[in-house]
Amino acid sequence: MQYQAPANDLSFLLFDVLGVDKLHELEKYADATPDLISAVIEEAGKLASEVIQPTNQIGDRQGCQYNPETHDVTTPDGFKEAYAKFVEGGWTALDAPLEYGGQGLPHTLKFVVDEMMCSTNLSLGMYPGLTHGAISALHSHGSDELKNTYLEKLISGEWTGTMCLTEPQCGTDLGMIRTKATPNDDGSYAIEGTKIWITGGEHDLVDNIIHLVLAKLPGAPDTTKGISLFVVPKVLPDSGERNPAFCGGLEHKMGIKGSATCVMNFEGAKGWLVGEPNDGMRAMFTMMNEARLMVGMQGLGLAEMAYQESLGFARERLQSRSLSGPKNPDGPADPIIVHPDVRRMLMRQKVLNEGMRALALFTGQKLDLSVAHPDEAVRESSDDLVQLLTPVVKAFLTDEGYKNADTGLQVLGGSGFTTDWPLEQLVRDGRIARIYEGTNGIQAMDLVGRKLSIKGGQLVRTLFGELTGFLKDNPEAPHREQLKGAVKALESATMWIAQNAPKDPEQAGAAATPYLRLTALTVIAYLWSRMAGVAQAQLDTGEGNKPLLEGKLISARFYFEKILPEIEQLKQDIETGKDSMMDLDDDHWAA
Amino acid sequence: MQYQAPANDLSFLLFDVLGVDKLHELEKYADATPDLISAVIEEAGKLASEVIQPTNQIGDRQGCQYNPETHDVTTPDGFKEAYAKFVEGGWTALDAPLEYGGQGLPHTLKFVVDEMMCSTNLSLGMYPGLTHGAISALHSHGSDELKNTYLEKLISGEWTGTMCLTEPQCGTDLGMIRTKATPNDDGSYAIEGTKIWITGGEHDLVDNIIHLVLAKLPGAPDTTKGISLFVVPKVLPDSGERNPAFCGGLEHKMGIKGSATCVMNFEGAKGWLVGEPNDGMRAMFTMMNEARLMVGMQGLGLAEMAYQESLGFARERLQSRSLSGPKNPDGPADPIIVHPDVRRMLMRQKVLNEGMRALALFTGQKLDLSVAHPDEAVRESSDDLVQLLTPVVKAFLTDEGYKNADTGLQVLGGSGFTTDWPLEQLVRDGRIARIYEGTNGIQAMDLVGRKLSIKGGQLVRTLFGELTGFLKDNPEAPHREQLKGAVKALESATMWIAQNAPKDPEQAGAAATPYLRLTALTVIAYLWSRMAGVAQAQLDTGEGNKPLLEGKLISARFYFEKILPEIEQLKQDIETGKDSMMDLDDDHWAA
Repeated sequence: MQYQAPANDLSFLLFDVLGVDKLHELEKYADATPDLISAVIEEAGKLASEVIQPTNQIGDRQGCQYNPETHDVTTPDGFKEAYAKFVEGGWTALDAPLEYGGQGLPHTLKFVVDEMMCSTNLSLGMYPGLTHGAISALHSHGSDELKNTYLEKLISGEWTGTMCLTEPQCGTDLGMIRTKATPNDDGSYAIEGTKIWITGGEHDLVDNIIHLVLAKLPGAPDTTKGISLFVVPKVLPDSGERNPAFCGGLEHKMGIKGSATCVMNFEGAKGWLVGEPNDGMRAMFTMMNEARLMVGMQGLGLAEMAYQESLGFARERLQSRSLSGPKNPDGPADPIIVHPDVRRMLMRQKVLNEGMRALALFTGQKLDLSVAHPDEAVRESSDDLVQLLTPVVKAFLTDEGYKNADTGLQVLGGSGFTTDWPLEQLVRDGRIARIYEGTNGIQAMDLVGRKLSIKGGQLVRTLFGELTGFLKDNPEAPHREQLKGAVKALESATMWIAQNAPKDPEQAGAAATPYLRLTALTVIAYLWSRMAGVAQAQLDTGEGNKPLLEGKLISARFYFEKILPEIEQLKQDIETGKDSMMDLDDDHWAA
Repeated sequence: MQYQAPANDLSFLLFDVLGVDKLHELEKYADATPDLISAVIEEAGKLASEVIQPTNQIGDRQGCQYNPETHDVTTPDGFKEAYAKFVEGGWTALDAPLEYGGQGLPHTLKFVVDEMMCSTNLSLGMYPGLTHGAISALHSHGSDELKNTYLEKLISGEWTGTMCLTEPQCGTDLGMIRTKATPNDDGSYAIEGTKIWITGGEHDLVDNIIHLVLAKLPGAPDTTKGISLFVVPKVLPDSGERNPAFCGGLEHKMGIKGSATCVMNFEGAKGWLVGEPNDGMRAMFTMMNEARLMVGMQGLGLAEMAYQESLGFARERLQSRSLSGPKNPDGPADPIIVHPDVRRMLMRQKVLNEGMRALALFTGQKLDLSVAHPDEAVRESSDDLVQLLTPVVKAFLTDEGYKNADTGLQVLGGSGFTTDWPLEQLVRDGRIARIYEGTNGIQAMDLVGRKLSIKGGQLVRTLFGELTGFLKDNPEAPHREQLKGAVKALESATMWIAQNAPKDPEQAGAAATPYLRLTALTVIAYLWSRMAGVAQAQLDTGEGNKPLLEGKLISARFYFEKILPEIEQLKQDIETGKDSMMDLDDDHWAA
C-alpha cells in the first residue's frame, strides 16, 4: 500500500489549531509563509511515498553488509539513490543555519518531514537524522574553524555525521567511558577506544563521515564532568588522508536492519576538541535533546504507516456479518471494519496518532518560539516547555507509537504476522526507538529527576500556566471537566513528588514512568480539547474539511472516554510510592 | 542462561494454595499423588532446560525448509532428537486416556508441562501441542474404529496431528470455507481444497501426520452449520499408501520459525467423517478450547523465560549508582536492579507471571474437577468456570505474556534488541499467540457474546459465587477491600452489558475487550489475595520457603497498588458504550 502523507491533518494542526503559519511574522522565519509550509508538506509527502518507501522492505531483507577485510559497510540496494534524491531536494538543509547553506526554516517543519521519512523508511532516515545532531553540536559548540571546515558539507548532505557515546561497559552511565584523547603537537588529539551501537558509523552513502566522539583527556575525573567532545572525520578534510576510525563489525538486530549499527574502533584517530575541555556532556545534550525529539517522530511515523495499512486491510477483508445487520449484503461477508472490536483498535491508533502529532508539533512550535520570538519572556516560557516535554515526546511517542504499530498488526490477524505484509517490520523497527537515545525509563528519570527541579520547578509551573490559562479562557472548551480532572491529577502527583522526592530520591525514581505518562496524557487531553474546539467552530461556520472535522469531534470523545481515564491509575501508582518495588530482597526474586 | 523451571512457585500454588494434590482423592486421578506431581515438575523441568532449550535459538535461525519438488518439510537441526526424547519420556501421553495408552493424569499437570515447553522452545512444543487437540477431538467425537486406528499412535507420539480450519478467504468466519468432501463408495470421502496456516501440516519428526480437516458435504448449508470434520491421514494406515494431502509451501513469519506453518493442498485425499455430518463445529470446539488453554500457557511460558533472562541481566549489568547510595561500592557502578524503574519492570513481570500462573492452574484444576468429581453440582460449577475462563486465559495470558517478554527486552536496553540475546526472539515468537486459535478480540467476543448468555448467565453467576463466597468466608483476607472493589466493578460492568447488549449487540462487541481484561484482573486479584493469605499464614507458623512467602506478600501489594487499579478505566470504557467507536463514517477515517 502506498503511503499517503497525512497532509490534511497536518494543515489542520499547523494552520487552524496551533497557528504555526504565524511563525513567518517573526524575522527569523520570514520565509515560512503558509504557502511554503503547504509546499513542504506536499513535496515531502511525495518524496516519502515515491522515493523513500520503495526502499523499505528491501532494506529489511538485505540489511547492511560488512566487509571485514576493508572495514567497509554496504547499505541495501536503492539506499544510495534514495539518499541522493533526499539530498538533491535540499531536505538535509531544511532547518539548518542560513550562514552555512541551510534554509533556516522552522524546526516544526523538520518534525513534519521526520514523521514522513520514518513512516516510509526508518533505517534510511537515520543517516541524515544523526547528521542533523552533529550539525547542531558543531554549530552550538564548535570553533569557527571547525564550523567552516564541516558545517557546509554536513548541511548539504555531502557528508554525514554520527554520535559516538556508548561503549561496551557503559550506555546510560557515561561517566564510565574509557575512550582516551591524547594531545598531539598540532593542537589535535589522538583518539583511542571502542564505541558501540554507532548509527551510520560506516556506510557507502557518502565519501566522508564526521564522528562526534566523547572521550577523556589525560587526568580528567572519572565522572561525566571529565568527558570532552571531539570531532573525528573518517577522511581528514585537508589532506584527504584516511583517519584510523574503522568499523569493527555490525550489530545483528531485531529490526532497523538497513541502518548500519557499528562497532567503531578509534585507533589513534585524529580529532579536534569541540567546546571546552571536560564540558562534553553539554554539547552531547545538544545532540541528544534534538535526537530525542527525532526519535519521538520515529514512533509516530511508524504508527501512522501502521494505521494506514491496517485501515486499508480492515476495509478490504471480508469476514463475518455486522452485529447490526449486513453492511455488504451482496458480498459473502462484511468488511471487518464494521466490527466494534476492530474499530476499537483502529480508533485507538487514529486518536493516539493524531494526539501524538499534536503534542510533537506543539513542542516544535515552542522550540521555534524559544529561539525566534522577540520577547524574552516568550522565549523563556517556550524553552521551559521544550525542556519539559522533550523526554515526554521521546518516551510517549515511541511507547504508544510501538503499541499502535502492534495494534495495526493485530488488525491484520495472521496476515500481520507474516512477512508478506509490512506490519511485522514496522513493529520490529519500532522496538529500538524505546531504547536508544536514552531508554524510556531514562527519559522518565530526566523528567522527574532533572526537569521538575530546574529553576525551582519553573518548567512545570509554565506547563500548569498554559493548561489552567486555557481552562480559564475557555469555559466552553470541549470535554473541559475531564481535562480539568487530568490537570488536577497531574498537580496532585507533582505535589506528591515535590514532597517526597527530596527526602527520598528513590520515590522520584519509582514515580518516574507513570508521571511521564500522566504528563503526556494530560497535555494531549489539552490538545484534543483545543482540536475539538476548533473543529466545532469550523463546523458551526461551515468552513473547512467536514469529514475531518466531524472525525475530530468523535475522536476527541474517544480520547476522553477510553484513553484519558488511565490517569487515575497513574496517579494512584505514583502516590502509593516505592515500597512495593523496593522492598524485595535479593533472595525474594526467584525464590 | 539456562532455564530454571519455577518449581517452588508451582509447588506453592499446586499444594499450598489450590490443593491440586487433593485431586488424587478422586478415583479418576488416584495416581496423581503429591509425590508424583513433584516428580512431574522435576522431570519436566529437567527435560525443558537440558533437552528442549538448546534447540530454541537454532530453530529460529534455521527455520523450517520446504522442498517444492518433494513437498517435504525439514525441521531445524536437533528438533527430531529433542522430539524423540519428549516422546521417550512419555510426555505426549501425560493426560491422555488410559484405554489408548495414555497416563490419564490431571490436565493441570499438562498445563504445568506446557508452560515449561513454551519457555524453552515454543516452536517445538507446537508439534505435540496440536497433536493433543487432535487426540481430544477423535476421543470425544470419533467412532470406535477411528479411535482404534489413530489414538494409540497419536498418544504415544509416533504420529502427530493437525487442525485444518483456516482457508485463504476465511479465518474467523468458518461458515465461508470451501473445502469439499465428496462421498467415496467405501464410506470414506474425497477431500478437496486448500487450507492455510496449518501448524505441523508437514514435517520430518514422524512418519505419519493425521489431519483433522473441516470441509463441506455436498449440498451442506453455507454457514457454520454446514461444516463437517474429517480425519485425513498423510499415509493411509491400512495400505501405507500416500494420501494426496501435500504441503504447498511454508509461511514466512515474524517468529516461531521452527514451527512449520503450512499451506496444505488436499487433492482428493481420503478422509473419514468424525462425528455427525454438519456437526463439525462442535468437534472443532473440542480441539479449539483445549488449544486456547495451551496457547495461554505459551504466553506465560515465554514471559517466564523473559523474566529469568532480564532478572539475570539486571543483577549483572553495572550502570550508575543507586539513588540511596552505592550498593556495590567496590565496583565501578551498581547493578541496575537497584534502580526503582528497573525494579518496576521486573516486579511487573514477576507479579503478573505469578498471577497468570495462578489463573491458569486454577482453571486447570476446575477442568479436572469438571470431569472427575463425583458430585454433579461440583462438576457443573467447575465446568461453568472452565467455559468462562478459557477465553480469558487465552487472551490475557498471551497479551500480558507478550508484554512481559517485551518488558524483559526493555530491561536489557540495547542488548535486548540484538540477536545476541534471546529476548527479541521471545517477543517475536510470542506475537502469534495473540492471534492464532482465535484472535484475542475473538476471545473477548466469545466471553461477552457467548459465555455470558449460556444458561441464562449461569457461568458468570458461578464466578461471582466463588468470589463473593471467598470474601464472605475470609473477613481478614489480604487486600480485601480492593478485591471487593474489583468484584463490584465487574458486577457493574456485567450488569451494564446485560442491560444494553440485548437491544444492541454492538454494545457487547464494543465492551468485549475491556470486559475480558476486567474479568482477568479481578480473578487474578482473588488469587493474589488467596496467595497472600496462605503466605502470611505460613510465615506466622514458620513453615514453608520464607523468601518465597515474603516475596508473595510484597508482590500481592504491588498487584493491588500498581496493576489492579486499571479496573476503573476498564469499567468506564465499557460503560461509556460504543458510540465513540461506531459513529465514525467511512469518509472520516482518513479525511
